Amino acid sequence: MKLAFLGPRGTNSEEAAICMKNIYKTDMELIAYNTIYDAIWAVAKGNVDYCLVPVENSIEGSIRITLDTLAHDVDLKIEAELVWSVHNQLLAKDTDVPIHTIISHAQPLAQCREYLKTHYPNAKTEAVASTARAAEKVSQLGDGYAAIATKSAGTLYNLKLVDSDIQDVEDNFTRFILLTKKVNEKRLSTPQNIMLICQIDGRAGSLYELLGDFAKRKVNMTRIESRPARTGLGEYIFFIEIDIDVEAQILEEAISSATKKCFWLKNLGAFPVFRGNAN
Amino acid sequence: MKLAFLGPRGTNSEEAAICMKNIYKTDMELIAYNTIYDAIWAVAKGNVDYCLVPVENSIEGSIRITLDTLAHDVDLKIEAELVWSVHNQLLAKDTDVPIHTIISHAQPLAQCREYLKTHYPNAKTEAVASTARAAEKVSQLGDGYAAIATKSAGTLYNLKLVDSDIQDVEDNFTRFILLTKKVNEKRLSTPQNIMLICQIDGRAGSLYELLGDFAKRKVNMTRIESRPARTGLGEYIFFIEIDIDVEAQILEEAISSATKKCFWLKNLGAFPVFRGNAN
Repeated sequence: MKLAFLGPRGTNSEEAAICMKNIYKTDMELIAYNTIYDAIWAVAKGNVDYCLVPVENSIEGSIRITLDTLAHDVDLKIEAELVWSVHNQLLAKDTDVPIHTIISHAQPLAQCREYLKTHYPNAKTEAVASTARAAEKVSQLGDGYAAIATKSAGTLYNLKLVDSDIQDVEDNFTRFILLTKKVNEKRLSTPQNIMLICQIDGRAGSLYELLGDFAKRKVNMTRIESRPARTGLGEYIFFIEIDIDVEAQILEEAISSATKKCFWLKNLGAFPVFRGNAN
Repeated sequence: MKLAFLGPRGTNSEEAAICMKNIYKTDMELIAYNTIYDAIWAVAKGNVDYCLVPVENSIEGSIRITLDTLAHDVDLKIEAELVWSVHNQLLAKDTDVPIHTIISHAQPLAQCREYLKTHYPNAKTEAVASTARAAEKVSQLGDGYAAIATKSAGTLYNLKLVDSDIQDVEDNFTRFILLTKKVNEKRLSTPQNIMLICQIDGRAGSLYELLGDFAKRKVNMTRIESRPARTGLGEYIFFIEIDIDVEAQILEEAISSATKKCFWLKNLGAFPVFRGNAN
């Protein structure tokens, strides 16, 4: 069994993939891909059985490439969700040298915006492809560079801890989803969420009517996210997540009624939610 | 009069700021800031009268730093909107050399994702702070580098056009908003849109009820965008834009009724919409 994740080694994505493998208690080969897009496509093409990709962070919001690829390019199902607790560490070759440049992935840079503004108001920031790449780069550069990365990347690249848990909000979670072509029913524990993707027309009240299919049946929508439909300014696709804790028949009716109001609707399925942590 | 924009020179933001100045037909000094965050704060602190910052792109979606700063940090009003037509140009020192690395801001890199995958499947991409910085960097590096930037950046840094209008969707617009502390009523032409920011509770049906205040009165919501409230996973702030084309009293009732359903609601005001183009 093969599982794709966003490489390189030492990222939150790798730590989460190891956690997922432990949850499944099966023999899984973890394969690093350069981009989220490539990891998702590896499943769609049948090169791997699963991919575990981030879909939302509690501070910075949705991971757009994941949403856009699911909406426009592939037809995959969600088998599980992993809510991963993120710890952003500030790492450098030396802890005594003033820091002039801070390197990381764009997401952790954004997650630590206030911290950086307060503690390093004059430091420049530089976005690179991953937190692990940031740690590697800092290990290769001269003095005064620091990376925001995981502890495992610090160990991998021999960096010292300057400051720990520097994210602006203490609770920093990233939700990962396990995608596959066909959900293995045997492996599935009790599902908790459903994710739907749909496009509706832009007339007044369309979204209201769509949400009514759920609200009137007391189906709890836990998240709604809009993305450009890529067909023109003002045209949107909606990502809707709902809590599955209602009678199956009522849920089915709600989705069936909503489907009739949409140009198209993709149901990515019902899935259980796990929690994980590196520390 | 002073207007802040996202520098450096040669970016879409500068081209749009010049366009805005021409629309206003007033003597405006354009001042470049390093980040959108700094440009917005320059207005809040009273260092400049206005800032013109991007709020949404038709392909890549919302500009998160703009939304988050408006929601959490400052209390500004929108005096006008400028819908800017974006043309992404592929620029290099030489048009005959194979390209191994493509540099740009993260937004245009995302806007041209499909093009790059098709035409430069093996090229690496590198995200820098602005399209103008990408053009500058390419002008300083060896062969095989290309930038996605504006024509004016190409002229500024003496680069040649490899390919033009390489964005994935022909119609690529960025919406800019002109922010100020207090709207100049004299300058205001007929308003078309209103922007509201609010936070509601997470119980089933909350958003549905909020949208009902508008839908039941036939007030057209043209856009809804959610962002994490930064208070915890599953808690969101909503950005709602509505079409002002209804009776003033009905609109007032709708907003007043919506306000009662929210923890808090900010009304950024009603504003006219202009259109602009560099070509």
